[in-house]
Amino acid sequence: MAKVTRSDSRYARPAVTVDVVVFTLQHGLHVLLVQRKHPPFAGMWALPGGFVEIDEPLEEAARRELREESALQPDYLEQLYAFGDPQRDPRTRVITIAYLALLPHGRQEARAASDAAAASWFPAYAPPPLAFDHGRILDCAIARLRCQLERSALIFELLPPEFTLGELQQAYEQVLNERLDKRNFRRKMLRAGLLADTGRHKAGAYRPARLYRLREEAAVGLRARRVFP
Amino acid sequence: MAKVTRSDSRYARPAVTVDVVVFTLQHGLHVLLVQRKHPPFAGMWALPGGFVEIDEPLEEAARRELREESALQPDYLEQLYAFGDPQRDPRTRVITIAYLALLPHGRQEARAASDAAAASWFPAYAPPPLAFDHGRILDCAIARLRCQLERSALIFELLPPEFTLGELQQAYEQVLNERLDKRNFRRKMLRAGLLADTGRHKAGAYRPARLYRLREEAAVGLRARRVFP
Repeated sequence: MAKVTRSDSRYARPAVTVDVVVFTLQHGLHVLLVQRKHPPFAGMWALPGGFVEIDEPLEEAARRELREESALQPDYLEQLYAFGDPQRDPRTRVITIAYLALLPHGRQEARAASDAAAASWFPAYAPPPLAFDHGRILDCAIARLRCQLERSALIFELLPPEFTLGELQQAYEQVLNERLDKRNFRRKMLRAGLLADTGRHKAGAYRPARLYRLREEAAVGLRARRVFP
Repeated sequence: MAKVTRSDSRYARPAVTVDVVVFTLQHGLHVLLVQRKHPPFAGMWALPGGFVEIDEPLEEAARRELREESALQPDYLEQLYAFGDPQRDPRTRVITIAYLALLPHGRQEARAASDAAAASWFPAYAPPPLAFDHGRILDCAIARLRCQLERSALIFELLPPEFTLGELQQAYEQVLNERLDKRNFRRKMLRAGLLADTGRHKAGAYRPARLYRLREEAAVGLRARRVFP
């Protein structure tokens, strides 16, 4: 770290925030948004987030803001990227450190807490216009999630502990926003060695479908590919 | 982003810095370190870096600090991770956004500029004790580089435009810090379809070795796997 040698502006400190992109699956990939109560962008939808306290670790700040604005407490949270464009907030210089969180559908209900006018789920691939540069942050979070899908077991964070192959395929299709070939998908999945047959079945419209779970021992190092602390 | 509702400490702003992990290959993976002139950790080695100016984009700050402290100007630079442990700097709350940069060996010479007492290359897998949490940041940068090696063409950022298969294998071995089987390596590399034969040869101790270059068309989307802006 350099000593201070330049203009006084070097002493001016930026504000630092955290913003959280929370995904869940419900008839398509959905993202949690909160409606802003105050200017700038009052009334617009935005990612939940807020200022980092002076003595607060970054991940704790992300969890606290999410809890305060939506009452959600996801198990899975990873740092996404720091966005620092000097013009991204009209008020002052604000650097935000964005996080990506995943929540299995239906496990926790989002409700607006004191800091937001409303909290609600929106289709991640067709969100409303977003405040600040949150549209760009959302795009980056989708890119990260898709990238993780190929090389980790992150998808299982979005599923219940037991699921049918059909439900697993639907989860992939919702994250990728495209249809997959059923026969190919099943063959690849069963070959990958990640799934264990529970011996149970789920009643369906036609015939009972086999229930699988993630083989934890096969997923070591894959389940949450958090390369960093 | 939340409005300010809590204690005054919420108004206190952290300092924000950038730190840069620059790697090059020279008889092993090497990292650029600068010797600190001033407390804290005066005299110790650290990653080049410094405070982000109030109106400066983050990546520009990373490039400026690196130029000021080492005179280096790498082509390849990507954001690594934001480190925000409240205790990571003994002076005040400092959040640092770390960057990863790659430099082909011998292309640019590192020299200490005004802000550092000395700038020098050290073995990345056996560095001296580092100031702050820079040892942990270096570990994360190595992990990212190894991870990128498997699924991108980033290794070519560390090589000259034309290289022999032996030189390519040495580059992999230096980044991974382990020996690879020559026959396997050659077969896999030639099969991957990333290399083009230049038709030229490099004179060697025994017999001339074929010179290859990266097939740019095969490396589209692989050369610099920067998922983010």
